[in-house]
Amino acid sequence: MDEIPGSLGTTASFSLRLGQTIFSSASLLFMSLGVQFYSYTAFCYLVTIMGLVIPWSFTLALVDGYSVLAKCPLRQPGILLIIVIGDWVLSVLTLAAACSTASVVDLLLHANGAYCPPKFCNRYQISAAMAFLSWFLSSASCLFNIWLLPSL
Amino acid sequence: MDEIPGSLGTTASFSLRLGQTIFSSASLLFMSLGVQFYSYTAFCYLVTIMGLVIPWSFTLALVDGYSVLAKCPLRQPGILLIIVIGDWVLSVLTLAAACSTASVVDLLLHANGAYCPPKFCNRYQISAAMAFLSWFLSSASCLFNIWLLPSL
Repeated sequence: MDEIPGSLGTTASFSLRLGQTIFSSASLLFMSLGVQFYSYTAFCYLVTIMGLVIPWSFTLALVDGYSVLAKCPLRQPGILLIIVIGDWVLSVLTLAAACSTASVVDLLLHANGAYCPPKFCNRYQISAAMAFLSWFLSSASCLFNIWLLPSL
Repeated sequence: MDEIPGSLGTTASFSLRLGQTIFSSASLLFMSLGVQFYSYTAFCYLVTIMGLVIPWSFTLALVDGYSVLAKCPLRQPGILLIIVIGDWVLSVLTLAAACSTASVVDLLLHANGAYCPPKFCNRYQISAAMAFLSWFLSSASCLFNIWLLPSL
């Protein structure tokens, strides 16, 4: 079978997973080091989702690293299907969290009252941007694996 | 080639496209019949995206209807690839718009001041729900077509 770059068990996939872990951790840290995040539903949602994405991406990064080092890629359709579904669900949830956060931050910035001290608002914006990057890498992983799936 | 239900040129695909057109039109109408939608970025974004989704889904519904009636499905990889990419981009944008709208409505409802008269807020909520349904059908179309793509 030809190797698809970015699919499970390749170096590209390992980089994608590592990027997801880094960006989602950054998003979580920027959000939760601010003090007021629990007063907005969207921010709590982002923290929850990032708490799901980090272990998922980290585990798959370990699996990819192992396959690359041991040179024996994991090619079982059942496992790949689970990974594709998990990736797809998590990427949808990440996108939803990123968009919600971004729109709430935008509303807080442009609302009449000064709800949002600039220090916090910058953090929220960076957190939303990191979540978008994490979503981008996660959906790339998902697409590469979907592409591989019918050929198994 | 075996027929995949939901892929381009089947009755299921026609139903999906019709559903997308109906839900996105409903979302657009509920949002734009309210008066204040242009004062929030997220709502303007929803209206813009729905204005893109409606013609796309309607055109593809016509194509599907034609293929079903004429019994000659369109099976060219290039065209299918364009449709898959378009579907994917639009479903991502629809999800983003739906989440932004939902989170802004949630914030408006629970913010201290009474920003949002109940009559408008209900409309916004229905509009966000319709956008979510439209996203769901759109991503279903996209997945079915992605599934068909490697077999062409």
